[in-house]
Amino acid sequence: MSVAYLNGRFLPLEQAHVSVLDRGFLFADGIYEVAAVIDGHLVDSAAHLARLERSAGEIDIPLPIPPAEIEAVQKNLVARNGLGEGLVYLQLTRGADGTRDFQPSAAIQPTLVMFVQDKPFLDVPAVRTGISVATTPDLRWKRRDIKSVMLLAQAMAKQAAKVSGAQEAWMIEDGFVTEGASSTAFILTDEGIITRPYSHAVLAGCTGAALTALAEESGLKVIRRPFTVIEALAAREAFITSASTLCQSVVRIDGQAIGSGLPGPVAMRLRELYIDFARRTAS
Amino acid sequence: MSVAYLNGRFLPLEQAHVSVLDRGFLFADGIYEVAAVIDGHLVDSAAHLARLERSAGEIDIPLPIPPAEIEAVQKNLVARNGLGEGLVYLQLTRGADGTRDFQPSAAIQPTLVMFVQDKPFLDVPAVRTGISVATTPDLRWKRRDIKSVMLLAQAMAKQAAKVSGAQEAWMIEDGFVTEGASSTAFILTDEGIITRPYSHAVLAGCTGAALTALAEESGLKVIRRPFTVIEALAAREAFITSASTLCQSVVRIDGQAIGSGLPGPVAMRLRELYIDFARRTAS
Repeated sequence: MSVAYLNGRFLPLEQAHVSVLDRGFLFADGIYEVAAVIDGHLVDSAAHLARLERSAGEIDIPLPIPPAEIEAVQKNLVARNGLGEGLVYLQLTRGADGTRDFQPSAAIQPTLVMFVQDKPFLDVPAVRTGISVATTPDLRWKRRDIKSVMLLAQAMAKQAAKVSGAQEAWMIEDGFVTEGASSTAFILTDEGIITRPYSHAVLAGCTGAALTALAEESGLKVIRRPFTVIEALAAREAFITSASTLCQSVVRIDGQAIGSGLPGPVAMRLRELYIDFARRTAS
Repeated sequence: MSVAYLNGRFLPLEQAHVSVLDRGFLFADGIYEVAAVIDGHLVDSAAHLARLERSAGEIDIPLPIPPAEIEAVQKNLVARNGLGEGLVYLQLTRGADGTRDFQPSAAIQPTLVMFVQDKPFLDVPAVRTGISVATTPDLRWKRRDIKSVMLLAQAMAKQAAKVSGAQEAWMIEDGFVTEGASSTAFILTDEGIITRPYSHAVLAGCTGAALTALAEESGLKVIRRPFTVIEALAAREAFITSASTLCQSVVRIDGQAIGSGLPGPVAMRLRELYIDFARRTAS
């Protein structure tokens, strides 16, 4: 049985409940983070905590405990659950009032929940085979830079991808790929590695940021500009990054092969560099 | 103490809790309805139940009990709580799996929660004074026809309105008013009553639909087309409709008076017609 954390208490995940008046439930008034755990250690924790603080600040939800204490709880959960490889999920909402009103009371106290997920991602078949993505219109709101729990559009995109036999959705807006439903999208062309620039249109991916830094250190050029599906189909390689996939090759888009239809050497090399970085910096 | 309903059980609202793994909490993967209660009776219930079925169908969440049974629970809650005037809130989510995954398991069971709110709206000062609205960019997703709990943008808009001394926000997209943060927007000009046509850009308001039918029956012309803030400021009257306000005059937009700066006779007349309709059809 998995041990979770909820508002200062450790308890079985099955017993972690919130009021139906919690604004996370009623209004999607909350944010979240997902950090990877490798060898029982948190990966790139500082980046995730910094993004957490930023998301919370953008919608004015105070952190109930400081980031260092949050990290201590995360490590505690990893240890209590004996987690070697997997994820730590964290969600912060504005909390629950005594009734439902769009405007929260001044006295409202935030809800902070964390739990772990035992999930292998280092040695999984998708790394060797690559994944397929399906394109879908980007239906999301206009503040995707905030890692909010407003995830229905992403869930719908994932479902549409699954129905068409793909493992991830790439969301399209105004003819360009914004990002994956739960990942950052990259292509490799003769220009270099191309990925969408930071803006309100996309989430600033922690894994993607670390991976592009590693790419640049190793001499690759990274160009931040939007790209189209047609460009992606003509690319040498394509890949995604996220805390839960690290880096995986995309070998098909809407059923059409990219390059050889096999994982490309650059994405595979970047994945290795990222795993080295993750192990080196894990805390 | 208020009695609520959760998945087949009646229980004190304070004890109505859901798992942190509920997809309503994790992914905003759910929908809701709010119906008015007047004289202890549900107002325009058939319209709200029809919209509930439509919203649920659009995101493929099955209703755990049929609409007639839902209505029976709502009436039961009204009676148990001795509610004379107020609201019945209903939320349906896809439910909770044993872990967090964008893709729900096949075995997932929906979560259905209902509770009442004791809230007077027939004789409130805002009816006599009219309300102020503040304009704000419409940050919402692209399927606003689904009454989903993806409400963070609306909550932010309401908060911004409150800060500027207004009681409601009007959301602006591509230069046009889409709708209020929790209401439908109308203006009255020499052309007639103008309101946004139904599309994915707006929610089809139940109160607004009934009110425009009453307006047409009484000989007023209703034109469904987008309007701008400049048109609204030059209008003879402006008003909003919703289950929780019925119909209220808008007398200021971003601090600028509309017409005389007082509630207009047409909006007041439509409010009376709506209250007559509500009492006549209450069930």
